[in-house]
Amino acid sequence: MFKKILVANRGEIAVRIIRACRELGIKSVAVYSEADKEALHTQLADESICIGASASSDSYLNMERILSATIAVKADAIHPGFGFLSENAKFVEMCEKCNIKFIGPSSSIIHKMGNKAEARKTMMKASIPVVPGTKEPVVTAEEGKKLADKIGYPVIIKASLGGGGKGMRIVEREEEFTSQFETAQMESIGSFGDNTMYIEKYIVNPRHIEFQILADQYGNVVHLGERDCSIQRRHQKLIEESPSVAMDENLRKKMGDMAILAAKTVGYENAGTIEFLLDKDKNFYFMEMNTRIQVEHPITEFVTGIDLVKTQIEIAEGKELPFTQNDITITGHAIECRINAEDPACHFMPCPGTIESLHIPGGNGVRVDTAVYQNYKIPPFYDSMLLKVVVHDKDRISAIQKMISVLGEVIIGGTKTNLNFQYEIFNHEKFKKGDINTHFIQDYFEQ
Amino acid sequence: MFKKILVANRGEIAVRIIRACRELGIKSVAVYSEADKEALHTQLADESICIGASASSDSYLNMERILSATIAVKADAIHPGFGFLSENAKFVEMCEKCNIKFIGPSSSIIHKMGNKAEARKTMMKASIPVVPGTKEPVVTAEEGKKLADKIGYPVIIKASLGGGGKGMRIVEREEEFTSQFETAQMESIGSFGDNTMYIEKYIVNPRHIEFQILADQYGNVVHLGERDCSIQRRHQKLIEESPSVAMDENLRKKMGDMAILAAKTVGYENAGTIEFLLDKDKNFYFMEMNTRIQVEHPITEFVTGIDLVKTQIEIAEGKELPFTQNDITITGHAIECRINAEDPACHFMPCPGTIESLHIPGGNGVRVDTAVYQNYKIPPFYDSMLLKVVVHDKDRISAIQKMISVLGEVIIGGTKTNLNFQYEIFNHEKFKKGDINTHFIQDYFEQ
Repeated sequence: MFKKILVANRGEIAVRIIRACRELGIKSVAVYSEADKEALHTQLADESICIGASASSDSYLNMERILSATIAVKADAIHPGFGFLSENAKFVEMCEKCNIKFIGPSSSIIHKMGNKAEARKTMMKASIPVVPGTKEPVVTAEEGKKLADKIGYPVIIKASLGGGGKGMRIVEREEEFTSQFETAQMESIGSFGDNTMYIEKYIVNPRHIEFQILADQYGNVVHLGERDCSIQRRHQKLIEESPSVAMDENLRKKMGDMAILAAKTVGYENAGTIEFLLDKDKNFYFMEMNTRIQVEHPITEFVTGIDLVKTQIEIAEGKELPFTQNDITITGHAIECRINAEDPACHFMPCPGTIESLHIPGGNGVRVDTAVYQNYKIPPFYDSMLLKVVVHDKDRISAIQKMISVLGEVIIGGTKTNLNFQYEIFNHEKFKKGDINTHFIQDYFEQ
Repeated sequence: MFKKILVANRGEIAVRIIRACRELGIKSVAVYSEADKEALHTQLADESICIGASASSDSYLNMERILSATIAVKADAIHPGFGFLSENAKFVEMCEKCNIKFIGPSSSIIHKMGNKAEARKTMMKASIPVVPGTKEPVVTAEEGKKLADKIGYPVIIKASLGGGGKGMRIVEREEEFTSQFETAQMESIGSFGDNTMYIEKYIVNPRHIEFQILADQYGNVVHLGERDCSIQRRHQKLIEESPSVAMDENLRKKMGDMAILAAKTVGYENAGTIEFLLDKDKNFYFMEMNTRIQVEHPITEFVTGIDLVKTQIEIAEGKELPFTQNDITITGHAIECRINAEDPACHFMPCPGTIESLHIPGGNGVRVDTAVYQNYKIPPFYDSMLLKVVVHDKDRISAIQKMISVLGEVIIGGTKTNLNFQYEIFNHEKFKKGDINTHFIQDYFEQ
């Protein structure tokens, strides 16, 4: 049993983890940057340590300082949350060397799945369908173009170490390939310090379907159903739901089995997510594996009744999964929507500011995960997400109706947000019908 | 289908009902007293109408004004919430005459169950166990004493129209009977304008176990499991949980069947609660029926996944229950705790004031029903309840741990509350073990 956990994150996910620790009777330690002195996570944890200046690189990304803090407070383990160091193999390796339990998989698994080209190869070996594409990383446009011509257009170029849409380009026609490849590569070098790219068949209007898995140290792996995260803006998820209207029992079993196989193939441990693309003909392709808790984990918690963060901690403590696949049932329908401090009228530019007024609704089947409060000053240094509004009801249409009701009640004064933008999506006929894909926002909300 | 519902209540239950209306696509109308001009329910509803001065008798209890408002806004139905006019047969009769649907049972059922002596008689006829006691109301101490001597001491004297501990006295010994009877009767005359009393065997250290039932217009009746409301202070519930540790499948079936029988016996319609006393030997006795939604309904919603308020509205619309007894399962454990603006150090005197600071926790399995907000002025005219903190987890001990974590996080500045008092109860070893009865507070928290 852990006695103390250091939470190497900020914002609502840090708060989420601190609460989970408290419920398990484990002391929590917050780390914070100078900008986060007054932050909720800093105030809520049993202990709090300032680890540096406001820029992430000086604080939440500063591995040495986080490890020093962990050792100083004698914490047994580190929960990384998502983002920051959560998928940094080097950091995990340092934890392993210091004999501090990292709540997540081992450094070698993170390394293996973090490199998208290598992950693809691993999955292909295990006969898990992947999008047709390059088997090895590509470094020159010339080489890339040969492969793209063979795969057939449209293709997508991705940075091997990419994420969040950076270093990513869709190429519709042969003649555009070279310039697009070079732009993507420049971005990759700028963002990830890496020039290796890979090229895939571009699946037209797919759904983004991901499976949540849990794996313990003893080889037990279960999946907790899927999340449909097709509503994205420039590869950033805006709305997630579980279950997906595109799914039936048969397909869920097939994809779920593949997700479990993917986890077993790499000897996975802890919570993870296998992301797939699902095309209109119900073909699915492995996209990537996320080796951490996801932003959208609450919808899975709502439909399964399983606490993912507490289970993560228990797995890391060496406990066996307390359930098998047969124990897991999906009840009702859950939807999450991200409310960000950003201006939809101005290219969704982040809008830091002070929350001058705030009303967060509650009630039956409503969960709002947030770290903001009245008079909170949003620092300009980090992610712009303010609230995760999550609802659960007996079916999809009731859940949508509930979300519309909740969003209509939210008040956030003092900063611009995407609240009305989200409200409009939930009121869109196509969305209500479940007729969605990853191009939904582009098709209906961007001129 | 209703198009518009008038909510004849205030505070968190009015907010709860307004949200349910919105989720069902029904317009809501709030009524408010002069003191509640800035109240959350007044602000949230689609329309709001002031119905009078701050005293309840001038506003929330003013039947004519509420009916006039209903007719003026052309509402199809009235939801009464709890308290105020929710169990007032005369008001319901007036609704019936005006052809306005009262969301609850008919006036004749409310009349029948509202009179405790008559309710007892009805249940006895149906072979539902009741606490041994008088069959007819008693008006003289002499007559009462004869009956009490026959029942055997201790006995409890109750006002026929009583509630909330008023007009109620426990008599341990024969020689105390006459004076106690007279005091209780004086209270009854003062509070309810009625001198009829009844006398029952006093069950020592029982649990308060109540069953939630739902009944539609077509004779379908289901129960949604029990709530253990044994933690009370002077007959006011403080903490409620579902399921009860005193229950097993067998007893739940037996008591649940009795609850359904009770509802069927009177031709009940809508949501209702059958309250029982359960003694140490697992004998149970019908106590009373509440013909309205209860304060503690959220715990049942958590463990069953059924929305009670939305179902109430649907039943009133003439819909059939969408489930049968076999569809209803109890999952995990839910606990509710009431946070009141009152001073535990000073006889729990209500403490109206201004909420100067407020932090309401959220997260997985946490629901807080409230109508307060930062800078809210608590009016001195009404109930002192500020928050209903409700948690749900996989088992009782996890739910208690979660409640402790949540209560530790709540901040209410500017007024005295029972927050610490509640915190101490949840940390009490006897409570943690589930070793509770209706005398728990008296035995461990009052000297």
